[in-house]
Amino acid sequence: MQTLQEKASQWSGVDAADAFAIDDTNLFQKLGLQTFINLSTNFYTRVYDDEEEEWFRSIFSNSKKEEAIQNQYEFFVQRMGGPPLYSQRKGHPALIARHRPFPVTHQAAERWLYHMEKALESTPDIDADSRVKMMNFLRHTAFFLVAGDELKTQKQQIPCKHGASKSAES
Amino acid sequence: MQTLQEKASQWSGVDAADAFAIDDTNLFQKLGLQTFINLSTNFYTRVYDDEEEEWFRSIFSNSKKEEAIQNQYEFFVQRMGGPPLYSQRKGHPALIARHRPFPVTHQAAERWLYHMEKALESTPDIDADSRVKMMNFLRHTAFFLVAGDELKTQKQQIPCKHGASKSAES
Repeated sequence: MQTLQEKASQWSGVDAADAFAIDDTNLFQKLGLQTFINLSTNFYTRVYDDEEEEWFRSIFSNSKKEEAIQNQYEFFVQRMGGPPLYSQRKGHPALIARHRPFPVTHQAAERWLYHMEKALESTPDIDADSRVKMMNFLRHTAFFLVAGDELKTQKQQIPCKHGASKSAES
Repeated sequence: MQTLQEKASQWSGVDAADAFAIDDTNLFQKLGLQTFINLSTNFYTRVYDDEEEEWFRSIFSNSKKEEAIQNQYEFFVQRMGGPPLYSQRKGHPALIARHRPFPVTHQAAERWLYHMEKALESTPDIDADSRVKMMNFLRHTAFFLVAGDELKTQKQQIPCKHGASKSAES
Protein backbone atom coordinates (compact mmCIF):
# COMPACT_ATOMS: atom_id res chain seq x y z
CA MET A 1 0.00 0.00 0.00
CA GLN A 2 1.29 3.44 -0.88
CA THR A 3 2.11 5.78 1.98
CA LEU A 4 0.82 9.35 2.20
CA GLN A 5 4.28 10.56 1.20
CA GLU A 6 4.43 8.28 -1.84
CA LYS A 7 1.01 9.37 -3.05
CA ALA A 8 1.93 13.03 -2.51
CA SER A 9 5.10 12.61 -4.58
CA GLN A 10 3.40 10.68 -7.35
CA TRP A 11 0.42 12.98 -7.75
CA SER A 12 2.34 16.24 -7.33
CA GLY A 13 5.36 15.22 -9.40
CA VAL A 14 7.55 16.63 -6.60
CA ASP A 15 9.76 14.24 -4.67
CA ALA A 16 10.22 14.59 -0.92
CA ALA A 17 13.76 15.95 -1.22
CA ASP A 18 12.54 18.85 -3.38
CA ALA A 19 9.45 19.42 -1.24
CA PHE A 20 11.48 19.76 1.94
CA ALA A 21 14.25 21.84 0.37
CA ILE A 22 12.41 24.69 2.16
CA ASP A 23 14.49 23.59 5.15
CA ASP A 24 17.83 24.22 3.39
CA THR A 25 17.58 27.93 4.15
CA ASN A 26 15.57 29.81 6.76
CA LEU A 27 12.90 31.36 4.56
CA PHE A 28 11.36 33.27 7.46
CA GLN A 29 14.65 35.06 8.19
CA LYS A 30 15.16 35.69 4.49
CA LEU A 31 11.67 37.04 3.73
CA GLY A 32 10.33 38.42 7.02
CA LEU A 33 6.91 38.32 8.64
CA GLN A 34 5.30 41.04 6.51
CA THR A 35 6.06 39.14 3.29
CA PHE A 36 4.20 36.09 4.59
CA ILE A 37 1.24 38.27 5.62
CA ASN A 38 1.22 39.84 2.15
CA LEU A 39 1.39 36.44 0.45
CA SER A 40 -1.57 34.99 2.36
CA THR A 41 -3.56 38.20 1.89
CA ASN A 42 -2.92 38.05 -1.86
CA PHE A 43 -3.83 34.38 -1.93
CA TYR A 44 -7.14 34.64 -0.10
CA THR A 45 -8.13 37.83 -1.91
CA ARG A 46 -7.87 35.79 -5.11
CA VAL A 47 -9.70 32.79 -3.61
CA TYR A 48 -12.62 34.73 -2.17
CA ASP A 49 -12.97 36.57 -5.50
CA ASP A 50 -12.79 33.41 -7.63
CA GLU A 51 -15.76 33.96 -9.90
CA GLU A 52 -14.57 31.60 -12.63
CA GLU A 53 -14.75 28.54 -10.37
CA GLU A 54 -17.66 29.04 -8.02
CA TRP A 55 -17.33 25.46 -6.71
CA PHE A 56 -13.85 26.32 -5.43
CA ARG A 57 -14.82 29.60 -3.80
CA SER A 58 -17.74 27.88 -2.09
CA ILE A 59 -15.34 25.59 -0.18
CA PHE A 60 -14.36 28.65 1.85
CA SER A 61 -17.85 30.09 2.30
CA ASN A 62 -18.09 29.08 5.97
CA SER A 63 -14.66 30.48 6.84
CA LYS A 64 -13.87 34.11 7.59
CA LYS A 65 -11.31 35.56 5.20
CA GLU A 66 -9.29 37.31 7.94
CA GLU A 67 -9.08 34.11 9.94
CA ALA A 68 -8.08 32.06 6.89
CA ILE A 69 -5.28 34.56 6.18
CA GLN A 70 -3.99 34.43 9.76
CA ASN A 71 -4.13 30.64 9.96
CA GLN A 72 -2.17 30.34 6.74
CA TYR A 73 0.61 32.85 7.36
CA GLU A 74 1.10 31.70 10.94
CA PHE A 75 1.54 28.14 9.71
CA PHE A 76 3.91 29.19 6.92
CA VAL A 77 5.99 31.29 9.35
CA GLN A 78 6.23 28.42 11.81
CA ARG A 79 7.05 25.80 9.17
CA MET A 80 9.59 27.96 7.37
CA GLY A 81 11.88 28.77 10.26
CA GLY A 82 10.02 31.45 12.24
CA PRO A 83 8.43 31.48 15.69
CA PRO A 84 5.71 28.87 16.37
CA LEU A 85 2.87 31.40 16.02
CA TYR A 86 0.41 28.80 14.82
CA SER A 87 0.99 26.27 17.60
CA GLN A 88 0.94 28.89 20.35
CA ARG A 89 -2.54 29.92 19.21
CA LYS A 90 -4.04 26.71 17.82
CA GLY A 91 -1.81 23.74 18.69
CA HIS A 92 -0.16 21.29 16.32
CA PRO A 93 -0.81 21.98 12.64
CA ALA A 94 -2.43 18.52 12.30
CA LEU A 95 -2.85 19.35 8.62
CA ILE A 96 -4.95 16.38 7.55
CA ALA A 97 -7.36 16.52 10.50
CA ARG A 98 -7.89 20.27 10.14
CA HIS A 99 -8.73 19.84 6.44
CA ARG A 100 -11.26 17.17 7.29
CA PRO A 101 -14.32 19.41 6.79
CA PHE A 102 -13.26 20.26 3.22
CA PRO A 103 -13.43 18.26 -0.02
CA VAL A 104 -9.69 18.12 -0.78
CA THR A 105 -9.85 16.61 -4.26
CA HIS A 106 -7.24 16.56 -7.02
CA GLN A 107 -9.23 19.29 -8.75
CA ALA A 108 -9.35 21.44 -5.60
CA ALA A 109 -5.60 20.98 -5.07
CA GLU A 110 -4.89 22.19 -8.61
CA ARG A 111 -7.14 25.24 -8.21
CA TRP A 112 -5.55 26.04 -4.83
CA LEU A 113 -2.11 25.81 -6.43
CA TYR A 114 -3.17 27.95 -9.38
CA HIS A 115 -4.11 30.78 -7.02
CA MET A 116 -1.00 30.26 -4.88
CA GLU A 117 1.30 30.48 -7.88
CA LYS A 118 -0.36 33.77 -8.89
CA ALA A 119 -0.16 35.03 -5.30
CA LEU A 120 3.56 34.19 -5.10
CA GLU A 121 4.15 36.04 -8.37
CA SER A 122 2.27 39.10 -7.10
CA THR A 123 4.28 39.29 -3.86
CA PRO A 124 7.42 41.03 -5.14
CA ASP A 125 9.59 40.52 -2.03
CA ILE A 126 9.69 36.80 -2.74
CA ASP A 127 12.76 36.08 -4.89
CA ALA A 128 12.75 33.41 -7.60
CA ASP A 129 14.70 30.82 -5.60
CA SER A 130 12.38 31.11 -2.59
CA ARG A 131 9.35 30.99 -4.89
CA VAL A 132 10.48 27.71 -6.47
CA LYS A 133 11.18 26.17 -3.07
CA MET A 134 7.83 27.27 -1.69
CA MET A 135 5.91 26.04 -4.74
CA ASN A 136 7.57 22.61 -4.53
CA PHE A 137 6.70 22.39 -0.85
CA LEU A 138 3.14 23.58 -1.40
CA ARG A 139 2.51 21.37 -4.42
CA HIS A 140 3.70 18.31 -2.52
CA THR A 141 1.69 19.35 0.55
CA ALA A 142 -1.50 19.92 -1.46
CA PHE A 143 -1.40 16.36 -2.78
CA PHE A 144 -0.37 15.03 0.63
CA LEU A 145 -3.70 16.48 1.79
CA VAL A 146 -5.54 14.87 -1.14
CA ALA A 147 -4.04 11.58 0.03
CA GLY A 148 -5.10 12.41 3.59
CA ASP A 149 -8.62 13.19 2.43
CA GLU A 150 -8.98 9.60 1.23
CA LEU A 151 -8.60 8.39 4.83
CA LYS A 152 -12.09 9.78 5.47
CA THR A 153 -13.63 7.20 3.18
CA GLN A 154 -11.58 4.22 4.31
CA LYS A 155 -13.26 1.19 5.74
CA GLN A 156 -14.25 1.90 9.32
CA GLN A 157 -16.60 0.67 12.01
CA ILE A 158 -19.82 2.67 12.01
CA PRO A 159 -22.87 1.92 14.17
CA CYS A 160 -25.80 1.81 11.73
CA LYS A 161 -29.44 2.07 12.69
CA HIS A 162 -31.32 -1.03 13.89
CA GLY A 163 -28.32 -3.21 14.42
CA ALA A 164 -24.87 -3.91 15.64
CA SER A 165 -22.01 -1.96 14.18
CA LYS A 166 -20.95 -3.03 10.74
CA SER A 167 -18.12 -1.96 8.53
CA ALA A 168 -18.95 0.76 6.01
CA GLU A 169 -16.95 0.94 2.81
CA SER A 170 -17.43 4.10 0.84
CA MET B 1 -17.43 24.75 20.88
CA GLN B 2 -14.03 24.11 22.39
CA THR B 3 -11.08 23.99 20.04
CA LEU B 4 -8.54 21.16 19.99
CA GLN B 5 -6.08 23.47 21.77
CA GLU B 6 -8.58 24.37 24.51
CA LYS B 7 -9.44 20.72 25.13
CA ALA B 8 -5.73 19.82 25.21
CA SER B 9 -5.03 22.52 27.80
CA GLN B 10 -8.04 21.67 29.95
CA TRP B 11 -7.48 17.93 30.02
CA SER B 12 -3.70 18.05 30.37
CA GLY B 13 -3.59 20.93 32.85
CA VAL B 14 -0.81 22.46 30.70
CA ASP B 15 -1.50 25.76 28.97
CA ALA B 16 -0.27 26.42 25.44
CA ALA B 17 2.50 28.79 26.57
CA ASP B 18 4.03 26.08 28.78
CA ALA B 19 3.51 23.36 26.15
CA PHE B 20 5.36 25.33 23.49
CA ALA B 21 8.14 26.52 25.77
CA ILE B 22 10.09 23.74 24.02
CA ASP B 23 10.68 26.41 21.39
CA ASP B 24 12.43 28.81 23.79
CA THR B 25 15.66 26.86 23.46
CA ASN B 26 16.88 24.51 20.73
CA LEU B 27 16.58 21.19 22.54
CA PHE B 28 18.07 19.27 19.63
CA GLN B 29 21.27 21.31 19.76
CA LYS B 30 21.34 21.02 23.54
CA LEU B 31 20.75 17.26 23.75
CA GLY B 32 21.96 15.81 20.44
CA LEU B 33 20.61 13.07 18.20
CA GLN B 34 21.80 10.11 20.29
CA THR B 35 19.90 11.32 23.35
CA PHE B 36 16.65 11.35 21.37
CA ILE B 37 17.37 7.85 20.04
CA ASN B 38 18.05 6.67 23.60
CA LEU B 39 14.86 8.28 24.91
CA SER B 40 12.61 6.65 22.30
CA THR B 41 14.38 3.31 22.75
CA ASN B 42 13.82 3.50 26.52
CA PHE B 43 10.20 4.50 25.99
CA TYR B 44 9.26 1.71 23.59
CA THR B 45 11.21 -0.90 25.52
CA ARG B 46 8.95 -0.06 28.46
CA VAL B 47 5.80 -0.01 26.30
CA TYR B 48 6.41 -3.32 24.54
CA ASP B 49 7.21 -4.88 27.95
CA ASP B 50 4.14 -3.45 29.70
CA GLU B 51 2.81 -6.56 31.41
CA GLU B 52 0.78 -4.67 34.01
CA GLU B 53 -1.50 -3.09 31.43
CA GLU B 54 -1.96 -5.58 28.62
CA TRP B 55 -4.67 -3.40 27.00
CA PHE B 56 -2.08 -0.65 26.53
CA ARG B 57 0.64 -2.91 25.14
CA SER B 58 -1.87 -4.41 22.70
CA ILE B 59 -2.38 -0.99 21.05
CA PHE B 60 1.12 -1.41 19.61
CA SER B 61 0.86 -5.07 18.67
CA ASN B 62 0.55 -4.36 14.93
CA SER B 63 3.53 -1.97 14.89
CA LYS B 64 7.18 -2.97 14.74
CA LYS B 65 9.15 -1.74 17.72
CA GLU B 66 12.12 -0.54 15.64
CA GLU B 67 9.83 1.43 13.36
CA ALA B 68 7.95 2.96 16.29
CA ILE B 69 11.25 4.08 17.80
CA GLN B 70 12.43 5.67 14.56
CA ASN B 71 9.11 7.43 13.91
CA GLN B 72 9.14 8.90 17.38
CA TYR B 73 12.72 10.15 17.61
CA GLU B 74 12.63 11.54 14.08
CA PHE B 75 9.51 13.52 14.95
CA PHE B 76 10.99 14.74 18.25
CA VAL B 77 14.24 15.79 16.53
CA GLN B 78 12.33 17.68 13.84
CA ARG B 79 9.93 19.39 16.26
CA MET B 80 12.63 20.31 18.77
CA GLY B 81 14.94 22.22 16.48
CA GLY B 82 16.79 19.54 14.51
CA PRO B 83 16.76 18.54 10.84
CA PRO B 84 13.36 17.54 9.36
CA LEU B 85 14.17 13.81 9.42
CA TYR B 86 10.55 12.80 9.82
CA SER B 87 9.16 14.85 6.94
CA GLN B 88 11.93 13.85 4.55
CA ARG B 89 11.00 10.21 5.10
CA LYS B 90 7.27 10.29 5.81
CA GLY B 91 5.89 13.79 5.05
CA HIS B 92 4.08 16.14 7.39
CA PRO B 93 3.66 14.81 10.93
CA ALA B 94 -0.16 15.07 10.56
CA LEU B 95 -0.34 13.87 14.15
CA ILE B 96 -4.07 13.38 14.45
CA ALA B 97 -4.50 11.57 11.14
CA ARG B 98 -1.57 9.24 11.81
CA HIS B 99 -3.03 8.29 15.19
CA ARG B 100 -6.36 7.50 13.57
CA PRO B 101 -5.91 3.69 13.74
CA PHE B 102 -5.37 3.79 17.51
CA PRO B 103 -7.81 4.24 20.42
CA VAL B 104 -6.36 7.47 21.87
CA THR B 105 -8.41 7.66 25.05
CA HIS B 106 -7.78 9.64 28.24
CA GLN B 107 -6.67 6.40 29.86
CA ALA B 108 -4.26 5.60 27.01
CA ALA B 109 -2.82 9.13 27.16
CA GLU B 110 -2.12 8.74 30.89
CA ARG B 111 -0.43 5.36 30.40
CA TRP B 112 1.63 6.73 27.51
CA LEU B 113 2.73 9.65 29.71
CA TYR B 114 3.51 7.35 32.64
CA HIS B 115 5.99 5.41 30.47
CA MET B 116 7.37 8.61 28.93
CA GLU B 117 8.06 10.15 32.32
CA LYS B 118 9.95 7.01 33.36
CA ALA B 119 11.82 6.98 30.05
CA LEU B 120 12.86 10.62 30.47
CA GLU B 121 14.10 9.85 33.99
CA SER B 122 16.12 6.88 32.74
CA THR B 123 17.83 8.89 29.99
CA PRO B 124 20.53 10.62 32.03
CA ASP B 125 21.69 13.10 29.36
CA ILE B 126 18.38 14.93 29.65
CA ASP B 127 18.76 17.69 32.26
CA ALA B 128 15.91 18.66 34.59
CA ASP B 129 14.96 21.84 32.71
CA SER B 130 14.72 20.04 29.37
CA ARG B 131 12.78 17.21 31.01
CA VAL B 132 10.16 19.61 32.40
CA LYS B 133 9.80 21.36 29.04
CA MET B 134 9.46 18.07 27.18
CA MET B 135 6.93 16.66 29.64
CA ASN B 136 4.77 19.80 29.36
CA PHE B 137 4.90 19.58 25.58
CA LEU B 138 4.18 15.84 25.56
CA ARG B 139 1.39 16.02 28.13
CA HIS B 140 -0.34 18.77 26.16
CA THR B 141 0.23 16.87 22.91
CA ALA B 142 -1.14 13.61 24.31
CA PHE B 143 -4.43 15.28 25.21
CA PHE B 144 -4.46 17.20 21.93
CA LEU B 145 -4.52 13.75 20.32
CA VAL B 146 -7.32 12.60 22.63
CA ALA B 147 -9.27 15.64 21.41
CA GLY B 148 -8.36 14.73 17.83
CA ASP B 149 -9.51 11.16 18.38
CA GLU B 150 -13.02 12.45 19.07
CA LEU B 151 -13.21 13.79 15.50
CA LYS B 152 -13.49 10.17 14.37
CA THR B 153 -16.88 9.83 16.03
CA GLN B 154 -18.32 13.17 14.95
CA LYS B 155 -21.46 13.29 12.88
CA GLN B 156 -20.64 12.49 9.27
CA GLN B 157 -22.28 11.33 6.08
CA ILE B 158 -21.98 7.58 5.67
CA PRO B 159 -23.58 5.51 2.93
CA CYS B 160 -25.47 2.72 4.73
CA LYS B 161 -26.71 -0.49 3.14
CA HIS B 162 -29.99 -0.51 1.21
CA GLY B 163 -30.47 3.20 1.03
CA ALA B 164 -29.30 6.71 0.43
CA SER B 165 -26.60 8.12 2.64
CA LYS B 166 -27.70 9.14 6.08
CA SER B 167 -25.93 10.84 8.90
CA ALA B 168 -24.35 8.57 11.47
CA GLU B 169 -23.86 9.83 15.01
CA SER B 170 -21.69 7.70 17.18
